[in-house]
Amino acid sequence: MKALVIAAGMGSRLSTMTNNRPKPLAGLLGLSLVERVILTARDASVREFVVVVGYLGAMIKEELGDGSKYGVEITYIENPDWHRGNALSVLKAREVLNERFFLLMSDHIFEPAALMEAGSFSLDDREVLMVVDGAPRDYIDMEDATRVMVSDGRVVRIGKGLSEYNAVDCGIFSCSTSLFDALQEGLMQGEETLSGGMQRLADKGMLKAYDLEGRFWIDIDTEEAFRKAENLLCRSLIKPTDGFISRYLNRPISIRISRILVKTGIKPDTISISSFTLSLLAALLLSFGSYLPVLLGGLLVQASSVLDGCDGEVARLKFQQSDYGAWFDAVLDRYADAAVILGLTYGWWFSHNGDYLVWVTGYLALTGSLMNSYTAIKYDTVVLKEQEGSSWRFGRDTRSFLIMLGAVLNQLFSLLVILAVIANFVSVRRLYVLRKT
Amino acid sequence: MKALVIAAGMGSRLSTMTNNRPKPLAGLLGLSLVERVILTARDASVREFVVVVGYLGAMIKEELGDGSKYGVEITYIENPDWHRGNALSVLKAREVLNERFFLLMSDHIFEPAALMEAGSFSLDDREVLMVVDGAPRDYIDMEDATRVMVSDGRVVRIGKGLSEYNAVDCGIFSCSTSLFDALQEGLMQGEETLSGGMQRLADKGMLKAYDLEGRFWIDIDTEEAFRKAENLLCRSLIKPTDGFISRYLNRPISIRISRILVKTGIKPDTISISSFTLSLLAALLLSFGSYLPVLLGGLLVQASSVLDGCDGEVARLKFQQSDYGAWFDAVLDRYADAAVILGLTYGWWFSHNGDYLVWVTGYLALTGSLMNSYTAIKYDTVVLKEQEGSSWRFGRDTRSFLIMLGAVLNQLFSLLVILAVIANFVSVRRLYVLRKT
Repeated sequence: MKALVIAAGMGSRLSTMTNNRPKPLAGLLGLSLVERVILTARDASVREFVVVVGYLGAMIKEELGDGSKYGVEITYIENPDWHRGNALSVLKAREVLNERFFLLMSDHIFEPAALMEAGSFSLDDREVLMVVDGAPRDYIDMEDATRVMVSDGRVVRIGKGLSEYNAVDCGIFSCSTSLFDALQEGLMQGEETLSGGMQRLADKGMLKAYDLEGRFWIDIDTEEAFRKAENLLCRSLIKPTDGFISRYLNRPISIRISRILVKTGIKPDTISISSFTLSLLAALLLSFGSYLPVLLGGLLVQASSVLDGCDGEVARLKFQQSDYGAWFDAVLDRYADAAVILGLTYGWWFSHNGDYLVWVTGYLALTGSLMNSYTAIKYDTVVLKEQEGSSWRFGRDTRSFLIMLGAVLNQLFSLLVILAVIANFVSVRRLYVLRKT
Repeated sequence: MKALVIAAGMGSRLSTMTNNRPKPLAGLLGLSLVERVILTARDASVREFVVVVGYLGAMIKEELGDGSKYGVEITYIENPDWHRGNALSVLKAREVLNERFFLLMSDHIFEPAALMEAGSFSLDDREVLMVVDGAPRDYIDMEDATRVMVSDGRVVRIGKGLSEYNAVDCGIFSCSTSLFDALQEGLMQGEETLSGGMQRLADKGMLKAYDLEGRFWIDIDTEEAFRKAENLLCRSLIKPTDGFISRYLNRPISIRISRILVKTGIKPDTISISSFTLSLLAALLLSFGSYLPVLLGGLLVQASSVLDGCDGEVARLKFQQSDYGAWFDAVLDRYADAAVILGLTYGWWFSHNGDYLVWVTGYLALTGSLMNSYTAIKYDTVVLKEQEGSSWRFGRDTRSFLIMLGAVLNQLFSLLVILAVIANFVSVRRLYVLRKT
């Protein structure tokens, strides 16, 4: 299915944020609003876009180009009447859309899943589907939202001023071409808004409703909504597999860093490599064995662990995730772990005239650490499927934190013993836990 | 779909192998013929079986029971007329089969995929599908095979003596209940064979043919066919991911061992643990450092590597594969690798007054070895999808072989250096190779 994206308006209420640029180009966590809508739809398998531009349209066209940089195809329709109602923008695309299409607003941010489900909803040839939110969260501006009354799976009334309503319009539609007829009809009677056309479809019983049931969406009309969207997107970066240290120490910091990083052109892989380099430097410092470099090394290990969260965060915020990227990061992490444990084993042995037991312990700590990661691949898949939320883990976040603690307390040998015991225990425990599933 | 399994005959030609037991109970690589047919069908998602017994039927019923030990449901039908034609055995099941079912012979061994594809073949309500082999391999006894003439996707003639034919009957069918009518009709005219009934269906254009296109099947009627089947099943145990050492040194030995092991009740997990224990013993011997124990340790490492193939082989031959079992084996292997490298590092350091560089090298060899296994999880999935056959690997088979070589030559330090360099190089190379896919 193609998607029609309406990006013709001026967005006067956001003028403080747009600096004489059209609202669809307002930057939200490293992507303009319209880019984010296009990339969200791309994640829902849409590959062809028709973008209606109006106010400062040339600027939008220059920014998005033909879509090849996003791996999609974008064609443009110009609407010189952008200052009039948005029905006109939709109607301009009538000539190029003769099959079912998605209709999206450039200022409505949402989850890909909402669009995917709208796309697989069963409809007859003439029906239009409106995605609605039957239980809007507190961050939805109910004063400004387009309210709808849904009855028996169909929208019956629609309007901003509706006093009786049970859902709000999310600005996401799966449209048949009958929408154009309804809009044209409205236009003849002086009604220039999209909602007007939708009301006409509703009157004929042709407007179905699909409730996105708690999935994320937001209409970005004000500076406040803009900030809300940023915070909500950032909060969604916390993963169910995140351990305690990651959730309460690393993420709060890494997300702050990622918010800055998304505004630069820095790629996730570059962040992975930077975090890896930091670990190598930490390993070198730890290998000196004396307190000051060990302390610095320990702090660097923790810093690297924080930065290690940023590659994935930036990738997700900018739609740059890839299987390869995640794996590349994971392999670098394992080598970083190995380097750090080697550094601190050597450092302690060298500075404390240690015997071979230091080496054996370091060796066991390394084995445990790598086996933790090895067994996690299967464990996380199985356990995540079976139970929501966090499971019994001894992840990299915890190991790195313990290393920092060991360095601060200058107790690297005890640390190695602890790592060796816990990491191997956790790995072997997984053999037992998974046997029972 | 249910499966009807014909296990009523005596199999006089195999009497030398059956020792007064009915032919369906003849043991082939640890499973009786009829067990193997049932387990093959289970792999093709069949859960309900109707088994027709005749000659020594009580023995078969006692052996298979209600099927719960195979995770399926088995009901029995007795055919006291088992010495007459096999059409009678099929007809006995008429009462209990009123929907489409698979018809299988207890002495026809085949790949699950052949049955799965037969099951998903599109047929109308009255049609019967015969799985045929249009290009029978040299191990199919053409003198004894039931020959068929296929034209336009339909079987037109069928019979052992057919002089003109273009395929052979594999003894696997997807049947509608119209088969019973055809058999009944035949019976009235004195025709008691299944082939006779099939010819009647063919005459009415109701017998479709599906060519299994090179998939494995064999009809086990003679001692020769029996041996052929054993050898072919064993040969299929060589995996596409097998490295050079595995393919040409380990497998030929491990398959010979597995052929013995399948006849015992030893479970795959027990074999994994035995191989692991052998590795721990090897690690202990290597840690002594002096030549004799090191030599023994090295040989044990190779022995453990050979035995490590048997768990998977036995599991596949006896339909005992499980995701968990494969993973359990893999985790034990990693710990075995770690133990062996620790043993030989310590042994060399201790017996050669080595300095910390021995430990550092052992450390790098361990990292490389574990990272090899860590990266292989993704590498094998991606590369196997893209290209058939073997890829650039440095698997456990090769590493274990090198360790044996190092022990025999008493050059454990050089060995550690080689392991450290190659294993890490191979792991890092994968980052590069997969980036480009």
